[in-house]
Amino acid sequence: MIRKVAVIMGSDSDWPVVKGACTQLKALGIPFEAHILSAHRTPAAAAEFAKSARANGFGVILCAAGMAAHLAGAFAANTTLPVIGIPMKGGAMDGLDALLATVQMPSGIPVATVALNGAKNAAWLAAQILALSDDALAARLEAERANMTEEIAAKEAKLQRELAAL
Amino acid sequence: MIRKVAVIMGSDSDWPVVKGACTQLKALGIPFEAHILSAHRTPAAAAEFAKSARANGFGVILCAAGMAAHLAGAFAANTTLPVIGIPMKGGAMDGLDALLATVQMPSGIPVATVALNGAKNAAWLAAQILALSDDALAARLEAERANMTEEIAAKEAKLQRELAAL
Amino acid sequence: MIRKVAVIMGSDSDWPVVKGACTQLKALGIPFEAHILSAHRTPAAAAEFAKSARANGFGVILCAAGMAAHLAGAFAANTTLPVIGIPMKGGAMDGLDALLATVQMPSGIPVATVALNGAKNAAWLAAQILALSDDALAARLEAERANMTEEIAAKEAKLQRELAAL
Amino acid sequence: MIRKVAVIMGSDSDWPVVKGACTQLKALGIPFEAHILSAHRTPAAAAEFAKSARANGFGVILCAAGMAAHLAGAFAANTTLPVIGIPMKGGAMDGLDALLATVQMPSGIPVATVALNGAKNAAWLAAQILALSDDALAARLEAERANMTEEIAAKEAKLQRELAAL
Amino acid sequence: MIRKVAVIMGSDSDWPVVKGACTQLKALGIPFEAHILSAHRTPAAAAEFAKSARANGFGVILCAAGMAAHLAGAFAANTTLPVIGIPMKGGAMDGLDALLATVQMPSGIPVATVALNGAKNAAWLAAQILALSDDALAARLEAERANMTEEIAAKEAKLQRELAAL
Amino acid sequence: MIRKVAVIMGSDSDWPVVKGACTQLKALGIPFEAHILSAHRTPAAAAEFAKSARANGFGVILCAAGMAAHLAGAFAANTTLPVIGIPMKGGAMDGLDALLATVQMPSGIPVATVALNGAKNAAWLAAQILALSDDALAARLEAERANMTEEIAAKEAKLQRELAAL
Amino acid sequence: MIRKVAVIMGSDSDWPVVKGACTQLKALGIPFEAHILSAHRTPAAAAEFAKSARANGFGVILCAAGMAAHLAGAFAANTTLPVIGIPMKGGAMDGLDALLATVQMPSGIPVATVALNGAKNAAWLAAQILALSDDALAARLEAERANMTEEIAAKEAKLQRELAAL
Amino acid sequence: MIRKVAVIMGSDSDWPVVKGACTQLKALGIPFEAHILSAHRTPAAAAEFAKSARANGFGVILCAAGMAAHLAGAFAANTTLPVIGIPMKGGAMDGLDALLATVQMPSGIPVATVALNGAKNAAWLAAQILALSDDALAARLEAERANMTEEIAAKEAKLQRELAAL
Repeated sequence: MIRKVAVIMGSDSDWPVVKGACTQLKALGIPFEAHILSAHRTPAAAAEFAKSARANGFGVILCAAGMAAHLAGAFAANTTLPVIGIPMKGGAMDGLDALLATVQMPSGIPVATVALNGAKNAAWLAAQILALSDDALAARLEAERANMTEEIAAKEAKLQRELAAL
Repeated sequence: MIRKVAVIMGSDSDWPVVKGACTQLKALGIPFEAHILSAHRTPAAAAEFAKSARANGFGVILCAAGMAAHLAGAFAANTTLPVIGIPMKGGAMDGLDALLATVQMPSGIPVATVALNGAKNAAWLAAQILALSDDALAARLEAERANMTEEIAAKEAKLQRELAAL
Repeated sequence: MIRKVAVIMGSDSDWPVVKGACTQLKALGIPFEAHILSAHRTPAAAAEFAKSARANGFGVILCAAGMAAHLAGAFAANTTLPVIGIPMKGGAMDGLDALLATVQMPSGIPVATVALNGAKNAAWLAAQILALSDDALAARLEAERANMTEEIAAKEAKLQRELAAL
Repeated sequence: MIRKVAVIMGSDSDWPVVKGACTQLKALGIPFEAHILSAHRTPAAAAEFAKSARANGFGVILCAAGMAAHLAGAFAANTTLPVIGIPMKGGAMDGLDALLATVQMPSGIPVATVALNGAKNAAWLAAQILALSDDALAARLEAERANMTEEIAAKEAKLQRELAAL
Repeated sequence: MIRKVAVIMGSDSDWPVVKGACTQLKALGIPFEAHILSAHRTPAAAAEFAKSARANGFGVILCAAGMAAHLAGAFAANTTLPVIGIPMKGGAMDGLDALLATVQMPSGIPVATVALNGAKNAAWLAAQILALSDDALAARLEAERANMTEEIAAKEAKLQRELAAL
Repeated sequence: MIRKVAVIMGSDSDWPVVKGACTQLKALGIPFEAHILSAHRTPAAAAEFAKSARANGFGVILCAAGMAAHLAGAFAANTTLPVIGIPMKGGAMDGLDALLATVQMPSGIPVATVALNGAKNAAWLAAQILALSDDALAARLEAERANMTEEIAAKEAKLQRELAAL
Repeated sequence: MIRKVAVIMGSDSDWPVVKGACTQLKALGIPFEAHILSAHRTPAAAAEFAKSARANGFGVILCAAGMAAHLAGAFAANTTLPVIGIPMKGGAMDGLDALLATVQMPSGIPVATVALNGAKNAAWLAAQILALSDDALAARLEAERANMTEEIAAKEAKLQRELAAL
Repeated sequence: MIRKVAVIMGSDSDWPVVKGACTQLKALGIPFEAHILSAHRTPAAAAEFAKSARANGFGVILCAAGMAAHLAGAFAANTTLPVIGIPMKGGAMDGLDALLATVQMPSGIPVATVALNGAKNAAWLAAQILALSDDALAARLEAERANMTEEIAAKEAKLQRELAAL
């Protein structure tokens, strides 16, 4: 039985970016739930979700938050499941606040941090983690990599046409 | 009855700096407790302390933490008492990680942030807050300000001697 | 008798953001005054306001300023009332200039700094400080926290509808 | 059969920090290999290692590098196994160069980034990933979390003794 | 026989800026090819291109990439031809991620880095390098410098008219 | 009659750097006074000094301060004499806090900012300003520039000896 | 005889900002010339202008430049007149490149740096410098300061009307 | 005839780092000269050297400077030879000032920038450029790359011994 991915966002304003994680997970056929839970506004609910996540069938937790982005850290503090942090742009210094608040975790409580607004990549990383015990998913990921090469070939062809017209 | 100040640090390695807050509070005659509580390693105990702080006679909470400094935010999420955040140097970019992780809190959950390693100033700020309902403390704070002027006068005298010898 | 909050801005261009502090204070039923006073253009008036603030019935002072944001520091230098600093975005490096100029105060003269453009949170912090000697206000703040949970529940419901349509 | 962890460092000068990952993995009973492979000095060997890692029994790859830290990205480009990046301090701006070069990966090629010099946390994260299909390891990780609480209790006791002597 | 310049971009989204390099090379009469090759999505093709570049008649390689900009480094790792890196704006902190990821290369594997979005300047630099063994090109570059002085003279004249109308 | 230079430092801890300004002024034969005055600890004395500086025979004011470096701004707010700001290293981000707090002044109240710890250069700048109405001083400054060329010639000679021994 | 101010910009694209310096100088009745001279595109002309500036009746030189802003430094290297640097926004990190390239000058060659895009303040600073030997100008500057207080009084009145309508 | 490399440093204090470029060039058998020339202290000599460099048999110019690092830009402004900039650590923000002042050059005047303190890499880059018209040098560079692989193999062997003893 494949484990579910939890996609948690600290605010509904994160949804336009976080949506990219959901569509990517869906495209890869990975079951997921998405919820709004805040480390600061609903700390008890967030802690409870994290504590019971493993028992509730989740395998990986994605947390997206901006500014003093504590969400991923608050989840990581309450579970030993892998937690992936997505720092959101929009606070101070082009999102540097969220990036540092997500990645600079103390020893023993890691957060797997991806790029600023990297919701899609968080979904890819979750898939790579789950694929360790799901050979079909692993094969799909390898196939997607091959697709990337083809996509770039198409773009290269378009570029050559533009160059010819320079 | 004067309320107590809680001085919380995320790690015992913060003590050499945080000690400055304790000695300052002691010098001002303000009752306090100091504890080690971690937003990541002991999240339940930290939340519990914050939730019961008002009932336990605390008036202000000081939280010192470094790197992805979530401690003050985690306390602020669980109490409506004023929480003062002390970002600690030593992580990334000379403490910028801790500063941003402490100060960039979302609407409704403020953290009163002081300077990097500003434990002494956190104690001063706590005293200024408590002095709003404690006239004797308010008078002591005013007297301390006058002392500052005198201290600088003494330093100025020393400077003039050094200048004469230049 | 509840003390008033002073809301000071260094320039009328700060008003669109600072307004959020005023509406928040009004919503919480906290008396306040708002004024334009500049640490650089009207230094004497600013110092005078700060010096007489306690006698004039103020309990907390909010100072919003951008760039080399000296306003909060100039107030803190002239009163032992708690001063809350609101660094404004818009100068260098996305407001980092204002944040550092507000928060990095020397020992003995603290400024309680909130997030960049965090006028609303400054109002919340002022309310939390005043609530230490105003039980009715303290109760209102606790009630507002409960409201936050409900607001997020409503947003969660909306999110689930969007997910169903993905 | 449990999969091995590959611990890769870009330079032997990274070893004093990276060693922390190895001792942590050993303490958790997780099999691992450690190697020096450089994205710039031995690009072909690095790519070859990454490409054959899954077939060679590896489940997670840890990559530690500083400055223009391309190592984790170069591995991620050549495998769909989860790759954990450890940015090393010591280049520009206190390691910000290595952090950004590790975390800011493009869509489809994620690197799970941990804190600057966070070798130990990279090992914890690898363990959490492998524990998804290893219940004994999962139980050990939960037990370690309980240990953390006890360690802090011991430090708290020591703190109270220091406070008494203040 | 003059050597060709290779203009490589990591993504077709870089084209609007990279185009400036191509038009500049064309204006200087320097033969070039432009291609999309990604250090992360097509690592094998990128390495292969770099390894055979000298034999294929290239003299200088321009690499434009953003975020964790590994492209120039990946090329430099696979050739001893001069590689010029163009860090692209658009990732974190106004392109600081791309700049540091491009310039902070380890000893023995240099990347000649130009300004953020500095595609035109990369073309100039390539021309200056090729002109070392092409006296006609060297003369053209000197002539272009003289043109710059004339262009500024024209702008100066326009400025004086605007000043007169102030 | 030549005007005096006022050398003001916010703290006696700034003296080891600020001393460089005094010795430079002395070497150039420019009369000066040095004092400790703090924008935060002695705001009234600082304002008073600034207001009466012109009448007291000063022509230029040098202000050295670190962290939230308000000293130069506080002086500039109270005089129309030229104020030169010396941001001190030692606060956050290698002195970036002091640099931004000194230089980012609002319209109408400029501070002439020099490099971090640039006390000597502040003295040079003061001399250049005073030399506008002191031809003898102007001649001395021109002579010093010629000296610089000679000093470098001596260092160049030493370098050639070291190169020969390489 | 009052000395002229030279307003130099590195590129005609700086004019919209630099214009503010010219209108300010005009309003203060200070004679000035404005020119386009580039440290990189017309280095000889720039050096020549700087070397002969004193003899040509100039007293202060304003230099506005962005990115690797060498213009002010190049002027300062060729004259002992006071040079005021105006770092322009628009390069990397919100103008931090231009700020650091302007202000971080070596010993003996100071540049009086003002805020990012601070053309108006550069004009004020030039006026303050020239006023040292021009009592009428000094009186005008004092009068302008008084005007600032009145302008803020008007804005304060407007604010009170807006508050009444809140 | 192989062209010489000019190694220019802005100050004799840069020599301990710049020496690395000289020893590297010597090891590669490339003729070079090293000189101290300052963009600010000896601007005329620097400009003259740059203007006559091509005629004097130089092919590439290395410029090392710190803080407001204008040296490389000043050379680039006066020659169309390739100029390699070495930003030196030691100014503000861990050398970010020197890096940005070196790399952010305007269109038409490129500086090939290497890593902070990257003197050795500047020498490698110069060699790669000169090797375009020197097949023997090109062969030596390829051989050096092979050496790197061997050096890492030796370090890998040492690492395996350390691992065995863990």
